[in-house]
Amino acid sequence: MAAAPVWSVDPRTGKQREQVAAEATPQVVDAAVRGAHAARAALADRATRIAFLRTAADLLDAAVAEVVETADAETALGSVRLTGELGRTTYQLRAFADLVEEGGYLDIRIDRADPSLTPPRPELRRYKVPLGVVAVYAASNFPLAFSVPGGDTASALAAGCPVVVKAHPDHPATSELCAGLLRRAAVQSGLPAETVAVVHGFDAGLELIRHPLVAAAGFTGSIRGGRALFDAAAARPVPIPFHGELGSLNPVVVTGAAAAERAEEIGAGLAGAVTLGVGQFCVKPGLVLVPEGDDGDRLVDAFGKAIAGTEPGVLLDLRMRENFLAGVRERGALPGVTAPVAAGAGGGGEGTVGAGFFQVPAARLAPGSGAGSGTDSGTAGSAYDVLLEECFGPVTVVARYGAADEAVAVLGRLGGNLSATLQVSSSEAGGGDAAGAVDGLVEAACSLAGRVVVNGWPTGVAVAPAQHHGGPYPAATSHSTSVGGTAIERWVRPVVYQSVPDALLPLELREGNPLGVPRRVDGVVG
Amino acid sequence: MAAAPVWSVDPRTGKQREQVAAEATPQVVDAAVRGAHAARAALADRATRIAFLRTAADLLDAAVAEVVETADAETALGSVRLTGELGRTTYQLRAFADLVEEGGYLDIRIDRADPSLTPPRPELRRYKVPLGVVAVYAASNFPLAFSVPGGDTASALAAGCPVVVKAHPDHPATSELCAGLLRRAAVQSGLPAETVAVVHGFDAGLELIRHPLVAAAGFTGSIRGGRALFDAAAARPVPIPFHGELGSLNPVVVTGAAAAERAEEIGAGLAGAVTLGVGQFCVKPGLVLVPEGDDGDRLVDAFGKAIAGTEPGVLLDLRMRENFLAGVRERGALPGVTAPVAAGAGGGGEGTVGAGFFQVPAARLAPGSGAGSGTDSGTAGSAYDVLLEECFGPVTVVARYGAADEAVAVLGRLGGNLSATLQVSSSEAGGGDAAGAVDGLVEAACSLAGRVVVNGWPTGVAVAPAQHHGGPYPAATSHSTSVGGTAIERWVRPVVYQSVPDALLPLELREGNPLGVPRRVDGVVG
Repeated sequence: MAAAPVWSVDPRTGKQREQVAAEATPQVVDAAVRGAHAARAALADRATRIAFLRTAADLLDAAVAEVVETADAETALGSVRLTGELGRTTYQLRAFADLVEEGGYLDIRIDRADPSLTPPRPELRRYKVPLGVVAVYAASNFPLAFSVPGGDTASALAAGCPVVVKAHPDHPATSELCAGLLRRAAVQSGLPAETVAVVHGFDAGLELIRHPLVAAAGFTGSIRGGRALFDAAAARPVPIPFHGELGSLNPVVVTGAAAAERAEEIGAGLAGAVTLGVGQFCVKPGLVLVPEGDDGDRLVDAFGKAIAGTEPGVLLDLRMRENFLAGVRERGALPGVTAPVAAGAGGGGEGTVGAGFFQVPAARLAPGSGAGSGTDSGTAGSAYDVLLEECFGPVTVVARYGAADEAVAVLGRLGGNLSATLQVSSSEAGGGDAAGAVDGLVEAACSLAGRVVVNGWPTGVAVAPAQHHGGPYPAATSHSTSVGGTAIERWVRPVVYQSVPDALLPLELREGNPLGVPRRVDGVVG
Repeated sequence: MAAAPVWSVDPRTGKQREQVAAEATPQVVDAAVRGAHAARAALADRATRIAFLRTAADLLDAAVAEVVETADAETALGSVRLTGELGRTTYQLRAFADLVEEGGYLDIRIDRADPSLTPPRPELRRYKVPLGVVAVYAASNFPLAFSVPGGDTASALAAGCPVVVKAHPDHPATSELCAGLLRRAAVQSGLPAETVAVVHGFDAGLELIRHPLVAAAGFTGSIRGGRALFDAAAARPVPIPFHGELGSLNPVVVTGAAAAERAEEIGAGLAGAVTLGVGQFCVKPGLVLVPEGDDGDRLVDAFGKAIAGTEPGVLLDLRMRENFLAGVRERGALPGVTAPVAAGAGGGGEGTVGAGFFQVPAARLAPGSGAGSGTDSGTAGSAYDVLLEECFGPVTVVARYGAADEAVAVLGRLGGNLSATLQVSSSEAGGGDAAGAVDGLVEAACSLAGRVVVNGWPTGVAVAPAQHHGGPYPAATSHSTSVGGTAIERWVRPVVYQSVPDALLPLELREGNPLGVPRRVDGVVG
């Protein structure tokens, strides 16, 4: 049986553009994994790896025109956004090269021998080693930054792990183009081309997670797909870590004082966050708690005007469009839920969707006002719980609350999130009693999310050493991050050397510290 | 139906000593978890937590006579070993108190806002927060150091996580005694007694891992039991991390030059490591690769003499004794496997077992000499593979190899291990060509284990900041450690604060650093 063709599709028309590859058979997946596995020794060389990451960034930057054109043809995300995304992607590759050079991620700890202890302590020298081949499952909504040359790939390669990417079906041509550039960079840096491979097809993704030589996986996508792969990873004879980012509602709470102070500004900012990338961001605010009363009304009016003025856009594929329209219908059919600006089909020609929002009393979302808890087994479900689920696309839910307790009660009903955002007033931000009054909100935000934002918006996840893009399940299936410097920690494991003579130690652990990497000696950073 | 009684049993006679508790019903487990959950806020206070850990150590030390007597009556491990184990346990509690005080485990990273970047970078401040209630599954073989007051409990409490321990049925009285002391320490430190709870019973262990308010688990025990709990943790609606230490063969390789240099010393040291604690250590050497020829013969002779002179001992319980005797019979029945000193029942009165070892040509363990690989799907099984499995108790397998390649080939067939040990000569330890010749062994050891020991023995896992007690599956179900400073990392998750005003930040992240904790600012340690 011939392997099924993989087509590049124009989401603006739904028409097939070109056949760019074939779905990977089990034999093709096996060959890709074995080729990657064989590249481990070459990739173990630190200087080679650093050169590779920098060359990959250079080649991608040099190909900006072709990459952006190809990605736009498959995703309709537009050249401005995609040019920015490529810049973010190559910045990230270079940042990981710098991080390998610095060496702090090895988390080196050295304990000197201490014969005075009972029992005597032998010398211990610990660092981290790469896990092996990493499987990366690319996301639909960032065809570069969370796809073939994205953060999972960059951090895994930086750690010394070869990568096999399961390409997302929404942008196979972009995936092949970027994979070709990464492979060229590998060869130019003295590595086998097989250091990075791409496979296509749903079944190939399952083959990959089950392959005995795959040592770990990174994933960005839906709860359904991510959970199935997480389950497969856990069910292996040798289970492997599965770092998945599955979904997030990204609640926002606006305090009464903030609404009084900045109703129009917050409304406009919210509209930008909800409609950025046609609402196809993992960190799009999907639930906004706004106070009842005049200040809240002003905010909602400003938000409504801004969102009504947003240009219609094209979603990443037709299935996503159907899911979006179905999600909008389901939410709009709930009694007591209004749609001051109706999200939905059309407005900008066939295939487009328009942005909008729903409004609902917060009491519908927190029956018993605060009695429930997101982590508590005792919470009864209700038809309104769908308003607490992510709806991918340019739409959000505005819930109007009375007392501040009610907002905290709604937060208490949520599962894990990538982000939680608070809009507070200048006096609440300034300390003293006013700040004390919002402590409960800050704590609630911290307990449910991996990132707490105050007086900003969660969209635009900065690539930075301290960034954390993850959170309690289902935001992430582990406590790791897929963006930021510590993303590399997912692909390494500690090994400690006990009483090992200097000549037999890896360079990073030798007494003279020939690579000049940071170390903790006897528990003290130095 | 009345809850089943839990008896303390004397392993020397198999007789019931006293009824010390009842098996926990689902209601009892639920109450224990809810009580622990309610203690989170009190335990969040850093100074309280530090005082609690130190008070717990003091109370345990003060009760040394009663603790050791109780533990010896249930485990037959003897007062010398148990007194040492209590010292290790209280040292560990104090070490975690110091570690909380120092604050490095929070892994604080601060990135300043940078408006010059595209897009502009907001200020990011990241630290780690406790996960919530931790379930600890106690081990049989360390009734103190890997049980109620052991490393999992100490590290979880240090992280700010209340603990519910599932007691091991081999030492319920010791578990209750220690739990009482920990609870008294909690109250003396201003914490609820419910900060630490103990439950008994197999079903209670399953209830615990499935409880919605349990956030993570630590386990030390068998592959079978650990894997069942790992699977249950992964199958939850909200999966939780399961840090299990399941089993390890702990291979040792003696080079030809080492045997020539120190045959008698290595043989005697090996006997000590195999028989320590009646062979009931997770890190007991279970496979020893010794060169063929005269030097190897001398080593095996010395080992045989030393092990034959070991006093018989009592295993922890009757089921373990039966499993040990069955394991010895199964291994001894393989053609070509000899037992120069036969391990088995008796010798020291009813209930005791004697130490011994098997010998086999290494070729039996590496069919096709090096073609297979422990991580490779293509390896065919053989009847001799049982020699590559852990046999809990005072017995080991000595495999005699010809060329060094053969030893590496056997290592390549092993799964994950807690430790791998090399015995090398002084010239191999000294660098140059001789050291180069053992590089392949060091690499093989590192690839299969969490700890690499050279010219020492893996038994005696030092409690130290750099220690790593874990390794590839099944040594551990995650890449974490259950001993050493980084054991605390299992119970915390990162949260990043974006653009959060100083007054709303946790103390650890405030600009003035009022707690004086170490931080990385803009990627630089300082």
